[in-house]
Amino acid sequence: MADYEKPQTAVEIGLMQGFPPAANLTVTHANQLFGPYNRWSFQNELKLNRTADVWRGKGTVVPFDYDLQDISHVTYQNRAGMRFSFDDMVEMSHTDGIIVLHQGKVIYERYLNGMQSHTLHAWASGSKSMTGTLAAMLAHEGLFSLDDLVIKYLPELAGSGYGDATIRQVMDMTTALRFAEDELDPVSENWQYSVAMGWREKTADYSGAESGYAFLPTIQKAGEHGDHFTYLTTNSDVLAWIMKRLLNQPLADIMQERIWSKLGAERDAFWIVAPSTEETSGSGLLTTLPDMARFGQMLLQNGQFNGRQIVPAEVASDFANGASQEAFARGPAASPGNVGWSYHNQWWVTHNDYHAYMAMGYGGQLLYIAPDADLVIAKFSSYPTPTPAGNEFYSAFAAFPVLAKILATQGL
Amino acid sequence: MADYEKPQTAVEIGLMQGFPPAANLTVTHANQLFGPYNRWSFQNELKLNRTADVWRGKGTVVPFDYDLQDISHVTYQNRAGMRFSFDDMVEMSHTDGIIVLHQGKVIYERYLNGMQSHTLHAWASGSKSMTGTLAAMLAHEGLFSLDDLVIKYLPELAGSGYGDATIRQVMDMTTALRFAEDELDPVSENWQYSVAMGWREKTADYSGAESGYAFLPTIQKAGEHGDHFTYLTTNSDVLAWIMKRLLNQPLADIMQERIWSKLGAERDAFWIVAPSTEETSGSGLLTTLPDMARFGQMLLQNGQFNGRQIVPAEVASDFANGASQEAFARGPAASPGNVGWSYHNQWWVTHNDYHAYMAMGYGGQLLYIAPDADLVIAKFSSYPTPTPAGNEFYSAFAAFPVLAKILATQGL
Repeated sequence: MADYEKPQTAVEIGLMQGFPPAANLTVTHANQLFGPYNRWSFQNELKLNRTADVWRGKGTVVPFDYDLQDISHVTYQNRAGMRFSFDDMVEMSHTDGIIVLHQGKVIYERYLNGMQSHTLHAWASGSKSMTGTLAAMLAHEGLFSLDDLVIKYLPELAGSGYGDATIRQVMDMTTALRFAEDELDPVSENWQYSVAMGWREKTADYSGAESGYAFLPTIQKAGEHGDHFTYLTTNSDVLAWIMKRLLNQPLADIMQERIWSKLGAERDAFWIVAPSTEETSGSGLLTTLPDMARFGQMLLQNGQFNGRQIVPAEVASDFANGASQEAFARGPAASPGNVGWSYHNQWWVTHNDYHAYMAMGYGGQLLYIAPDADLVIAKFSSYPTPTPAGNEFYSAFAAFPVLAKILATQGL
Repeated sequence: MADYEKPQTAVEIGLMQGFPPAANLTVTHANQLFGPYNRWSFQNELKLNRTADVWRGKGTVVPFDYDLQDISHVTYQNRAGMRFSFDDMVEMSHTDGIIVLHQGKVIYERYLNGMQSHTLHAWASGSKSMTGTLAAMLAHEGLFSLDDLVIKYLPELAGSGYGDATIRQVMDMTTALRFAEDELDPVSENWQYSVAMGWREKTADYSGAESGYAFLPTIQKAGEHGDHFTYLTTNSDVLAWIMKRLLNQPLADIMQERIWSKLGAERDAFWIVAPSTEETSGSGLLTTLPDMARFGQMLLQNGQFNGRQIVPAEVASDFANGASQEAFARGPAASPGNVGWSYHNQWWVTHNDYHAYMAMGYGGQLLYIAPDADLVIAKFSSYPTPTPAGNEFYSAFAAFPVLAKILATQGL
């Protein structure tokens, strides 16, 4: 096995220790996304952000069956040719918590960096997959068609780059939009979006949009929709807006009624909200690790969980099918690590032997669902920033298929 | 019965309806405390504030027994000589929810203004009584003595007005401190405190304290401690700071371990936190109405609840004893409506025939515990601001003792 450096915990770093904590070890709204501060912030998002609660309801908690396995012999070779054990992968990839479910039973579970099973942790962009799941459910209910134009429900976007986009293009992120990321330019799309959603403090002379509702209509087109995959968080916000408009409910309530109140979750979920109180539908979900795993297991079981059909089977079973691999390969997200992938209904789809698909978020948030290995892996992490290039591709994405193959073939 | 005007609900007013809501009907961090916006904000505090969660734990919910009674015949005369029914009182006093427990059973329960039994609602200054209860528990555990000087644990306050105050004086708010409330003066204590705790946005040229830890040492003395009752929220913050310093835990965790995890609560509680992530210990508690009632019933039962002793009997039974009625009468809070009262361990004590004591908060938050009538009333409200002078004295405080007397004597 190759050597590696064990990441420091928030306590070892000294983050937020004492009352008051030292100034240089204080986590704030401004530094929360960056390492090492995210070693603390990802487990303390409520203290740094406004949220909308998603009540778990009054039902009983669905317990997990346990069949814990020794997986110390599961080793993988990463893309640099180094060999590590699955346990090494968990340690080195800044894991806060990981649960592995095989055939619906917990075979592996670990908490690190002070996390506990009841800790609420950030999903970051993994949240998009929750938003996409809800949108796919509403389309299945007939509330709208994926072939409808976005502006059928959001006339506010008629003059924007979304003016001729279909909901399907938004779902699969094949929209073509101008979105400059210039960190030094207060009139760049990224700057204004960050202020609108509350990630960046408003400066005294800021005169741009102050909500997603105000920002989204300003986005312009750049190219033709439908050609290739371009990952952009505003697409999730458009989906959420359509749902809210049609149901006249906040996204948190839509999720509460359709999924969270039925899942037998241990705790409430939360959405980080913008100053306007709108949910940050592409990044703001918080749950416990076991509850993320419940959501994944429910989808693996084609939506059947806790004695009922929560997500329609047609919806749940479709995620793994993915969308156009060619559109993905033509887009800017294509890399040697994700050959053959596609992006569908706000899920990353591997098209691998186990038909694995994933929710994936900044800092190492992963919900890996591999139907053909009867495997669900929920993993929360807090990678430092900037994220080491390809960290997941060097660790989790190398280790997960190895475990899937063993489980799908000879067994542990 | 006298006539009265039925208050409008948040939906009738049109607050936060639609996506986006109308600008003039949008509730914001800046207007949340004021009417009519508080008709919405008091039930949506998570969306407007950062919070610390107080996990309910894994225990089962303690259900209430119900023995619902018709109390339409309970009428009272207010201080203006007008007669109303108890139901009138509930309607006219901007109630969001009310539960009345007699002999441990729910005899009356109503939700108004869109509130539901699982809605998280602001306690406002009623929060002080939770902080005081925890401080009284820790003193009983021997962690500190109420006769200790504050600076024994918080040397940071040596040069402040708290330099020669005892913890008992802080508990009973007989400290004498300079605290100007000038709304137009950015260097007034109230202005700086509001910024430090996150209630007021920081202006570009603000140079004062940015946390409670930084603000509290700046408070100066004005008079002599121990002479009379002066209601001041910073006293709650000093108590919280002592507890956090001694236990090296956030207030939310102290409450979780000692009370909330044992209470069989239906939901988690939450503390609104300042930008520094410190709990706003004098105003920031959020719970459901039934959970507030559980807390009250536990205290009525001398701390015995859910099959265990949660608060020591000596602590719980002492609140009703109160402190010096003379010190209260000498202070600026004395009024014709509260003759004979005192303030003790962060509770308002009536010294009435039923030894009722109360948690009481801005906007009409009340937890009324009357041991000698075996009565607990939990009431959440959203009075407009400025609060009609003596609104509670004209309504709830007139009606509650009438109900207590009936229950304690002939019964309903």
